[in-house]
Amino acid sequence: MSERVKIILDEKYIPDRWYNILPDMPEPLAPVINPNTGKPATANDLRPIFPMALIEQEMSQEQYIPIPEDVRQIYKLWRPTPVYRARNLEKVLGTPARIYYKYEGASPAGSHKPNTAVAQAYYNKKAGINRLTTETGAGQWGSALALAGSLLDLEVKVYMVKISYEQKPYRRSMIQAWGATVIPSPSRETNSGRAILAHDPDTTGSLGIAISEAVEEAATRPDTNYALGSVLNHVLLHQTVVGEEAMMAFKELGDYPDVVIGCVGGGSNYAGLAYPFMRERLLNGKETKFIAAEPEACPTLTKGVYAYDYGDTGKMTPIIMMHTLGHTFVPPGIHAGGLRYHGMAPSLSSLVKHGLIEARAYHQNAAFDAAVTFARAEGFVPAPETAHAIKATIDEALKAKELGEEKAILFNFSGHGHFDMAAYDAYFAGNLKDYSYPEEKVREALKYLPKVEV
Amino acid sequence: MSERVKIILDEKYIPDRWYNILPDMPEPLAPVINPNTGKPATANDLRPIFPMALIEQEMSQEQYIPIPEDVRQIYKLWRPTPVYRARNLEKVLGTPARIYYKYEGASPAGSHKPNTAVAQAYYNKKAGINRLTTETGAGQWGSALALAGSLLDLEVKVYMVKISYEQKPYRRSMIQAWGATVIPSPSRETNSGRAILAHDPDTTGSLGIAISEAVEEAATRPDTNYALGSVLNHVLLHQTVVGEEAMMAFKELGDYPDVVIGCVGGGSNYAGLAYPFMRERLLNGKETKFIAAEPEACPTLTKGVYAYDYGDTGKMTPIIMMHTLGHTFVPPGIHAGGLRYHGMAPSLSSLVKHGLIEARAYHQNAAFDAAVTFARAEGFVPAPETAHAIKATIDEALKAKELGEEKAILFNFSGHGHFDMAAYDAYFAGNLKDYSYPEEKVREALKYLPKVEV
Repeated sequence: MSERVKIILDEKYIPDRWYNILPDMPEPLAPVINPNTGKPATANDLRPIFPMALIEQEMSQEQYIPIPEDVRQIYKLWRPTPVYRARNLEKVLGTPARIYYKYEGASPAGSHKPNTAVAQAYYNKKAGINRLTTETGAGQWGSALALAGSLLDLEVKVYMVKISYEQKPYRRSMIQAWGATVIPSPSRETNSGRAILAHDPDTTGSLGIAISEAVEEAATRPDTNYALGSVLNHVLLHQTVVGEEAMMAFKELGDYPDVVIGCVGGGSNYAGLAYPFMRERLLNGKETKFIAAEPEACPTLTKGVYAYDYGDTGKMTPIIMMHTLGHTFVPPGIHAGGLRYHGMAPSLSSLVKHGLIEARAYHQNAAFDAAVTFARAEGFVPAPETAHAIKATIDEALKAKELGEEKAILFNFSGHGHFDMAAYDAYFAGNLKDYSYPEEKVREALKYLPKVEV
Repeated sequence: MSERVKIILDEKYIPDRWYNILPDMPEPLAPVINPNTGKPATANDLRPIFPMALIEQEMSQEQYIPIPEDVRQIYKLWRPTPVYRARNLEKVLGTPARIYYKYEGASPAGSHKPNTAVAQAYYNKKAGINRLTTETGAGQWGSALALAGSLLDLEVKVYMVKISYEQKPYRRSMIQAWGATVIPSPSRETNSGRAILAHDPDTTGSLGIAISEAVEEAATRPDTNYALGSVLNHVLLHQTVVGEEAMMAFKELGDYPDVVIGCVGGGSNYAGLAYPFMRERLLNGKETKFIAAEPEACPTLTKGVYAYDYGDTGKMTPIIMMHTLGHTFVPPGIHAGGLRYHGMAPSLSSLVKHGLIEARAYHQNAAFDAAVTFARAEGFVPAPETAHAIKATIDEALKAKELGEEKAILFNFSGHGHFDMAAYDAYFAGNLKDYSYPEEKVREALKYLPKVEV
């Protein structure tokens, strides 16, 4: 009966460097394009909204970037996070597979997001910036940046997608508890917001719109910078502490994952866990399989195109090469708000294109089935986003059972569902809709991809 | 800058025995009285609702009781919990005191409650019982027992105080996510419930009423037992894993607390942390100060009487000697639902009577002030109950500053506030009422204390 359930490393084992996958990619990433000039963006183009240290990280070809001691000190509030062996889930499934998960729900904001929020706040503060804007969908990222602002003494303003602002009041309360300002988007405070409202006063908003507003405010106020919660290289970079810690835990366990799984919206939690293991595959030939789980309602990797596109609806951001459903695409209102994004991180998109990561799409009812099975076996109640990763994990574990394979499967428990219980209510009441692939809407949106010649 | 922030012991250091303070008390506890006979209760009197193993623990004079390996295995899902050094809070306060807290918010249910829920579910299952009833106020205890039922495969039915059932839907959803049944109390399913509803159909319910209903159902159904989340000796016993782990962490830190603080409703989280340190004071002369923090609106220890009283409104429970505001007393609707109980654990009451624990009462706005100061410094957002402990801690830390004393202060972070954000909203909006001591209501309630002659 006495079986090891988890490993939590001492805080001295928090990594002292982030892993940058860019120099190890199968091919270099396509250049980022300045939307105004149509030419490759320079560091200077990004200076109105980002501090130089983050711009350098965005473009760096160094394999490792040191983590400032002040950032590590704050990471100690919740890191290293546990690596769990899901023994109860294994028993329920009757699988010979060993199922592991990295529990990022342990942070004060309840997800992996503070890993980069703290780093971004730190570099901004060091550059003399004391005010940040950002957007948030379901509120995971907005609350993470509010937390970071509170810990590092920066003012934070969050544009929250209007429908979430109204339907998820408790994430909003949490943002306020940490002292940040939060307003519903689209708002009357920006040109982008006013333009959208003029056209459609009753819009429920979208992540793409909220990004436009936050970027616009940062670009037009010298005292203010912008912070993004996913997609960009430096954001994924900061998340690699997740995978590096998992790697150390596996060393202590004397095991190594055969399959590494995560859910993907913009890609940061999955990249954070997967990239250190991808490095071992790319450089040392480790035969790990990588699976990215996304929603059927927003199937960026499985049904989108690999093309140049804007990161936001208002065309404020640079144009990047990625998997996309089109920057004008507004996904159906599924509960996994963090997975409702039209694009995907460029590095992750490229790895999918090269066949190094396999993408799978799931309906939300199937994801909640998996989440409830998990919660009743392992205790922790997952966020709807994380539920997609659990669905893929259970599928893999059942396949291992069928084939009699004793695999090790690792997934990222990217966040808890304490602020998503209304979604569980809807699921139990049978009120969750499974949206079929929005083919027409995507075909329409893809007409508006920018034309870029490099 | 590189300073230790927390200690999380390896899971092999989860205690293998609970500490029973009864044999070490300054004087033996007064006998528990059977409400039907007026005579001291026997083990047999409790058999309709508890398994023998828990009745034996309730009455045991053994100093230590072994923790079953199956229970320790489940504890590994979240134990040992971290001991944090609140360095940021110390800086904000400018205090020379060292502030520590035990973070019980790490459990899947978000509080210390699963420590006893799992133990109680285990002993019931071992006794062949597969169905449990209980009551819950704000929902912390109900969700903890639902979790335990889910992990140990027992059916759980929760009578939830009606006003919480309506105002805290997400705790209810969590109980359902773990597969338990939850109904608003008073209900039409019990005689106690029907009697209350006949008299006052619009009642918002109370913990005392919900206890009556849960006990009645357990007493009248042979397949069903009852589980209580606080007050009783065996419940406090199970919580001592908190203090024993803290003791080990302090050994590793090379420190020892001068002050040990916790909030008190029925007393279990505070006893769990404090009793192992109390043992060192009672048996080894360690000069630790103990402070129990309660709400002004329900000031059981500071304004109640030390007398025999019922544990519930419906007079179903045994009569116990404790601090009480009277079993008919219904406290004002403060947000710290877990502290709204008319009575207090007998052992804790006795220690207060003997001057070994000092009690302090706080208004809820002062408690929320402290909670927000804490959250902005340390990240974690506390439950309103925990906020009372933080208020006492900050007061002690500021006193240490005034006196220039380098004390070590330890408090129990009994639970997070993820399901209490509506209370934070009300606090920020200035809508939280501070209730003065309900003198009239208490005087009235104290008229109905049972007359007991032993």
